[in-house]
Amino acid sequence: MTGEFERSPRTLRERIRSGSFTGPTSGQAPGYFQGNLAILPEALAGDFLRFCVLNPKPCPLLAVGEAGDPRLPTLGADVDIRTDVPRYRIFRDGELIGSPGDLTKEWRDDLVTFVIGCSFSFEAALQRAGIRVPHIDADTNVPMYVTNIATKPAGPFAGPMVVSMRAFSPQDAIRAIVLSDRQPLAHGAPLHFGDPAAIGIADIMKPDFGDAPVIGANAIPVFWACGVTPQMAIRAARPDIAITHDPGHMLVTDLLAERSS
Amino acid sequence: MTGEFERSPRTLRERIRSGSFTGPTSGQAPGYFQGNLAILPEALAGDFLRFCVLNPKPCPLLAVGEAGDPRLPTLGADVDIRTDVPRYRIFRDGELIGSPGDLTKEWRDDLVTFVIGCSFSFEAALQRAGIRVPHIDADTNVPMYVTNIATKPAGPFAGPMVVSMRAFSPQDAIRAIVLSDRQPLAHGAPLHFGDPAAIGIADIMKPDFGDAPVIGANAIPVFWACGVTPQMAIRAARPDIAITHDPGHMLVTDLLAERSS
Repeated sequence: MTGEFERSPRTLRERIRSGSFTGPTSGQAPGYFQGNLAILPEALAGDFLRFCVLNPKPCPLLAVGEAGDPRLPTLGADVDIRTDVPRYRIFRDGELIGSPGDLTKEWRDDLVTFVIGCSFSFEAALQRAGIRVPHIDADTNVPMYVTNIATKPAGPFAGPMVVSMRAFSPQDAIRAIVLSDRQPLAHGAPLHFGDPAAIGIADIMKPDFGDAPVIGANAIPVFWACGVTPQMAIRAARPDIAITHDPGHMLVTDLLAERSS
Repeated sequence: MTGEFERSPRTLRERIRSGSFTGPTSGQAPGYFQGNLAILPEALAGDFLRFCVLNPKPCPLLAVGEAGDPRLPTLGADVDIRTDVPRYRIFRDGELIGSPGDLTKEWRDDLVTFVIGCSFSFEAALQRAGIRVPHIDADTNVPMYVTNIATKPAGPFAGPMVVSMRAFSPQDAIRAIVLSDRQPLAHGAPLHFGDPAAIGIADIMKPDFGDAPVIGANAIPVFWACGVTPQMAIRAARPDIAITHDPGHMLVTDLLAERSS
C-alpha cells in the first residue's frame, strides 16, 4: 500500500500503530468519526466527565475508557489508545513537555481516556451537499477563537468556550446550520453567527488558534463550539499529567458519521 | 360549546360549515396543518400544479382535488371546500370581486382545488421550543415582502417570491432554522437572513403585506418563503375565475403537523 490516503479506519490505525502513517488525519477514512483525545488521571476523571456532560456542544463524548485500560472497544475492536493516534501532546502541570508518536512509556494504571467528537465529519457533510468550506479550499487550518461565553464548570475544569469559524453566504449558512445540527457528536448546530464582538471576538482576522480566516464578500461568519474548549479547561486545571492528540492528528474510529446517534 | 377556541379540526370545520365560526384560524386546532387555498379552472390546473412542484418552498402541496369535486378526503373525510373555510376571496380576471363566507353559488364542475401549507405549524413548533415569535407577541400580522428572487415559471404562472420575516437573536435564529427545516410542508428552512437589500427589500420597516415588523436590538431578520407567492402568481395569470382564502382564514386539516412528511 502506498500513498497517504486510507479508506478503512482499521487499516489506517494499523499503519499509525506500525509507524508508517504519521501525518494529520484530515480527509482520511471518509465517512467515519474522528475524535479529539484527552487522557487524565482517574482522580480527575469524574470531574472531567461531568464537564463534558455539562458542555455537550464543545465536548460531545464518543467514548470513555476504563482506568488503566488503553482499549476503546466501542470505537474499534483493535483500538489501543497508546499507539493509534499519529502524534500526542503530553502536559505536566499544564505545561507541554513533549509530542511523542506513541504513549508506551507514559501509560499508567490510573489513566482514563476520553474521546470527543470533532468537526471533520460535519465538514464532510457540507462538502457532500456542495457547500464550499473556505479554509479547506484555501488548504489552511480552521480559525479558532476564545470567546466571552463561559463553559459550565465541573471541579477544576472551567474556562471560556472556544469556537471555530467558517464564513458562508446566508443561503449556505442556512444549509450548514441544518446539516451540522444533524451531527450532535460533531459539535452540532453553531452557537452564533454574524457579529463577532457579540461573543467577545475583538478581531475576526486574528484567530487565537489556526490560520487567518477566508471571508468572501457578503459572507457571514458562523461559529461552532470547538474541541479546543476542553483542552483549555484541562490545561487550566493543571493536572500532574494530561495527554491530548497533537492538533489535526486524531483518533480515527469505526463509527460511521451518518449513524443517527 | 362556547368560545372561539376549538381543539378538534373536525369540530372546527363543522362550526365553520354551520356559520358559527367565522374568524381567523390562527391558534385553532393546535398541532394540525392549516392550508392556503387556491381554486382554479381545470384548464389552468396542470400549469399551476407544475408551478407548485417547481417552487416547493413557497408552494408546499398538502392536497390537490379532482376537477369539480369539492371533497379533499386526504385532509379530512368530511372536508367540503365550498363551506369549510371561514372566508374566501373571489377574483375575476385578477380583480377581487367578493369575499363570501361560502362558495355554494360559485362552485363549478371544472374547478380544481389546491391546498398549500402555511407557516402556522412551524410558528407553533418555535413556540413549543421556547422561542418568542415577535409578531405573535405583538398580536400583529407577520410582515411580508415582495423580493427580487424570481419563481420558476410554469405556463401563465410566474412572478416574484414573497417572503415572510421574523427577527430573532442569532441563537434563536439558529434554532428557528433547524426547527423550520423539519417542516417542509410549512415552507421549510428560510431562504435568507440578514441584509434585506440582498433580496431586493428596500425598507424592512415597510412590508408589502401584513404589519410593520418588530425587530429587537441585535435581532437578525430571517426570511421564509411565503404562501402569498402563489397568490401573486395567480393574480398575474388573470384566470377568468380564481378563489383563495381570505388572509388568516385557512382550511384546517386533519394532518398532524408533526408527521414527518
